[in-house]
Amino acid sequence: MNPKLQWLRNKMSSLDLQGLIISNPINIKYLTNIEAEGVLLLTRKENIYITDGRYIEDVHSTLTLFDEIIVYDVHDVSKDDYENFFMFCENVGFEESYVTYADYKEFIRKYKINNLVETEKIIEKQRMIKDEEEISNIQKACEITDNCFEYILTYIKPGMTEKQIANEIEEYYRQRTDGLSFETIVASGENTSKPHAVPTEREIQEKDIITIDMGCKVNGYCSDMTRTFFVGDIPEEIKKVYDLVLKNQTQTQEAFKDGVSTRILTKMVENDFKLNGHDLIHSLGHGVGMEIHEAPYISYRTDTQLKENMVVTNEPGIYIPGKFGVRIEDTVQITKFGCISLTKSEKNYIII
Amino acid sequence: MNPKLQWLRNKMSSLDLQGLIISNPINIKYLTNIEAEGVLLLTRKENIYITDGRYIEDVHSTLTLFDEIIVYDVHDVSKDDYENFFMFCENVGFEESYVTYADYKEFIRKYKINNLVETEKIIEKQRMIKDEEEISNIQKACEITDNCFEYILTYIKPGMTEKQIANEIEEYYRQRTDGLSFETIVASGENTSKPHAVPTEREIQEKDIITIDMGCKVNGYCSDMTRTFFVGDIPEEIKKVYDLVLKNQTQTQEAFKDGVSTRILTKMVENDFKLNGHDLIHSLGHGVGMEIHEAPYISYRTDTQLKENMVVTNEPGIYIPGKFGVRIEDTVQITKFGCISLTKSEKNYIII
Repeated sequence: MNPKLQWLRNKMSSLDLQGLIISNPINIKYLTNIEAEGVLLLTRKENIYITDGRYIEDVHSTLTLFDEIIVYDVHDVSKDDYENFFMFCENVGFEESYVTYADYKEFIRKYKINNLVETEKIIEKQRMIKDEEEISNIQKACEITDNCFEYILTYIKPGMTEKQIANEIEEYYRQRTDGLSFETIVASGENTSKPHAVPTEREIQEKDIITIDMGCKVNGYCSDMTRTFFVGDIPEEIKKVYDLVLKNQTQTQEAFKDGVSTRILTKMVENDFKLNGHDLIHSLGHGVGMEIHEAPYISYRTDTQLKENMVVTNEPGIYIPGKFGVRIEDTVQITKFGCISLTKSEKNYIII
Repeated sequence: MNPKLQWLRNKMSSLDLQGLIISNPINIKYLTNIEAEGVLLLTRKENIYITDGRYIEDVHSTLTLFDEIIVYDVHDVSKDDYENFFMFCENVGFEESYVTYADYKEFIRKYKINNLVETEKIIEKQRMIKDEEEISNIQKACEITDNCFEYILTYIKPGMTEKQIANEIEEYYRQRTDGLSFETIVASGENTSKPHAVPTEREIQEKDIITIDMGCKVNGYCSDMTRTFFVGDIPEEIKKVYDLVLKNQTQTQEAFKDGVSTRILTKMVENDFKLNGHDLIHSLGHGVGMEIHEAPYISYRTDTQLKENMVVTNEPGIYIPGKFGVRIEDTVQITKFGCISLTKSEKNYIII
């Protein structure tokens, strides 16, 4: 059996689960490499993937005998089959944070399950720790992102629109990667005050501030980086805010290491922002992997200890409504004694 | 109050709901134009949207006084506020097909709700019937799709890769629309046997069969069209299958009108395919609107009566594993006495 499924079966034993229903397609891809619509069932003795005619051929070509996964076409699965899958299972786990309430009720009906049990993101928690291959993919995505940013700095000229710049980034990524890991943010002037700005037809002007938040995918793994930079000159008012954001981004980078609490990291930045009259209005960071946003979340809401080989972002930002905003973000690998920044673009004042 | 929220409040009265929690961002956009992360609460007397600092500015600039929506920053909402929102509400509705089981439990805890009630997709059902503005947006998206297809037929040459063609389509759309409504499918040769093929580095050859499934978004509304066509010549074996698919696509188009059963439509095609030794391995079609796949679903699984001003696809297909596949798809507006095909590209043999 493939090692990830083997790991999961061991985990099931320790949780006293005799069966497990996995619905989240990203978790299914992580465990099996299958990219399709369907459900993965771990029954007492078998690993079963149920999909439909659109995907059967493709799923068969993805799997090897070594995976030990039996594939069914949903049209060939009878009412009795469903009821037999988890027969004699006392506890069957499901993904309560992915499965809708409607599907939860349907599972109980269809599989005749007595005890459908919450599994508290066991797979997502495992996904937080990246193996060598995963890190290598993220590294490549980050390297291409650095190169793209270097290129885009030479490309941008006053008169171009935000949309035009975003398109150029997308084109760069498309030629070299599996595509974007999220919709590129190119915000200029007062648009930078919106953390989630969508590129507009606004034209870049002399003395503009520009924020670009960008990332791509390599072999299914994401990169994520933000830089705020300037055309011609940096106004004094913005410089102060930039320095404060950069100082906190650097301090966080220096604090990142195995064992550190995500809540304390966030508090540190929040406090320093408050002392200077500003707020931290979004998370300090998030995990990056097969999803652009995944566990662990670095905010005051949840407390997680960072662990070796987690890959997370570090992205403090300050936004002055109607005026401007500054955000600086890197994708970072946590190590035993510190961290390695996987995105490496310049963070001191960039003026084009 | 805006007419869509007013409609929903009337609906709530008729269902004896004193409160409603709307979580699906597409439904929120449909009702309010807000594009953000947050939740819309209809309480006894107020419409409340709770979001976070990243979106506050943007949400305020989207809404007008006329909307009668009060916006809160999630950080300013206390435990007591949550418990007060639905105080004295007997029944509070939620979206059981969107909300996860974990969130369902969290709703009960956080809002102290006694009776959290399933609402059976009331908003999605309303979204099935498009108004004039919605149809006009879909029409534009379809027109640009027809133009893009006409252009791409002149662009394709033997030696090009599937990816290259998909990129050209994307570029065409990006210059003229809000972007893709889904990842473009360009499949050639035996890759056409996979209904959900992803573009590969395979090069187009003389005498190839090519399937392109494509669509874009205009003002947030989608188009969807598929054509299967040929390089130089059509092999006799494929011609037979093509004729059978086209015959059924045409017959479905002729059968589409207000009042017709989606299950019977699907059965008709299934039967004719079976008589000729083939299967219909996917749905015959689906609704198109703000989402590329939305209600109604045209398959044997559910039975819906088509209604005037629904917009749906008509996309029969036949796939011979390892050999080839043929699919022909239009986006179609249902009318009182028939239907209007919004995509209008040629469906008889296309040979480039």
